[in-house]
Amino acid sequence: MALAYDPLFIASDKALSAFDVASPPHPMILTQDELKRIAAYKAVEFVESGMVLGLGTGSTAKHAVDRIGELLRQGKLENIVGIPTSKKTQEQALSLGIPLSDLDAHPVIDLSIDGADEVDPYLNLVKGRGGSLLREKMIEGASKKFVVIVDESKMVKHIGGSKLALPVEIVPFCWKFTAEKLRSLLEGYGCEANLRLGEKGKPFVTDNGNYIVDMHLEEDMGDLGAVSDAILRLPGVVEHGMFLDMASTVIIAGELGVKIKNKQHTTTSS
Amino acid sequence: MALAYDPLFIASDKALSAFDVASPPHPMILTQDELKRIAAYKAVEFVESGMVLGLGTGSTAKHAVDRIGELLRQGKLENIVGIPTSKKTQEQALSLGIPLSDLDAHPVIDLSIDGADEVDPYLNLVKGRGGSLLREKMIEGASKKFVVIVDESKMVKHIGGSKLALPVEIVPFCWKFTAEKLRSLLEGYGCEANLRLGEKGKPFVTDNGNYIVDMHLEEDMGDLGAVSDAILRLPGVVEHGMFLDMASTVIIAGELGVKIKNKQHTTTSS
Repeated sequence: MALAYDPLFIASDKALSAFDVASPPHPMILTQDELKRIAAYKAVEFVESGMVLGLGTGSTAKHAVDRIGELLRQGKLENIVGIPTSKKTQEQALSLGIPLSDLDAHPVIDLSIDGADEVDPYLNLVKGRGGSLLREKMIEGASKKFVVIVDESKMVKHIGGSKLALPVEIVPFCWKFTAEKLRSLLEGYGCEANLRLGEKGKPFVTDNGNYIVDMHLEEDMGDLGAVSDAILRLPGVVEHGMFLDMASTVIIAGELGVKIKNKQHTTTSS
Repeated sequence: MALAYDPLFIASDKALSAFDVASPPHPMILTQDELKRIAAYKAVEFVESGMVLGLGTGSTAKHAVDRIGELLRQGKLENIVGIPTSKKTQEQALSLGIPLSDLDAHPVIDLSIDGADEVDPYLNLVKGRGGSLLREKMIEGASKKFVVIVDESKMVKHIGGSKLALPVEIVPFCWKFTAEKLRSLLEGYGCEANLRLGEKGKPFVTDNGNYIVDMHLEEDMGDLGAVSDAILRLPGVVEHGMFLDMASTVIIAGELGVKIKNKQHTTTSS
């Protein structure tokens, strides 16, 4: 039986129980970054030669992009076209020699791979703590398959459950007004709204020239579709970080192995 | 009885019929710009000293801003604070000596006055052919009272009924992709989506650094609230030019007088 630190080990719920019994007395403890890499490598197994690929942004997605670059160099993948979700990922992919294009030229994407900040039991996501939520949503929304890669710390009972922020991208014009409208809209869920700051205490600016308001939530918001529409109806809001009903697969790397959850039903493989 | 070219003449539906009979054989023909000025002057009658005022953008609103400046100079209005809906209106107001502020300092506005490109029978509007739809929607949505001023050519049976465009503000990133998504979304209503061009054939850029796609519609879209939400859900869309359920009063200047329509019911006065 595979050990927990074998990146290719896929645990089913049943196997997990068996593993608990069979585990060595001093199992190797994996760092969060190692877990991220395990999930990323597993996701890249879905990639086939000739695919148009959405390339995610952030510390987990970076491992996937590195792996795709490696497989291209080794000749194990061919004719890949990458669509980067940020300027940062664009630079990384270029440095790895991954051929790039954009949504205008490739409005349909075969597969996107990206991380997430939160994943709820219905595979709804929070994304955008890296600041690229708009381009990610455009590209991942145009994908036939969207594989999300996370370490197990990202799994939450409900959006906002990690006590970290739900990011909302807003226009800089009268941002205080828009931030207050957002706070007021979600006041019933214990919301605090804070402008994200970047270097030297200046507002963080997205690739699209906008600001980000981080919404810290205390309570489950319930009907996320209704909350999403209410946020989008506020003039001044460009996009928010809830990715509802978009993920087709979530790959979760944990100390005890890798778990794969598919949309609408959970499957595990070994 | 007042004559058609008297800017203070307010026609009721009944008076209009009477007027047809009583009109002189060669009535003065008013230009469209004169009609716009008549509506604008009528709207400024709603302005009181001490008010925070949303100042609209476009050829009709310009007359209202001019008139407010005039009344301030004459001492007939005092302690006005103007909140301009565009850089252009800001310049105009500054040149007239109207004290200005913004939504961050004044999140609640007493009265906004602005033109519109289309007004339907329920006082839903299309705005934004001037390109300032986002700031207008932020400011006019924050107003206790929103008075719309139009000449009668702007009255339509349904949104899109003038065969002119419904503007949608989008991020420049992969604009072709977003424009195609918009066209596809409204395909059933005979929609064509065209990027708005500015000087030298380059894309027109809004005050917020975004592009505008002009959506030309053939058919009545029916449930406008549902269409609005569907447009706003497209990542890449910042805002659209439908102002639904926002106008409290519409002042319509026509050859036969001025008509005032209030939200939910039509009133006329003379």
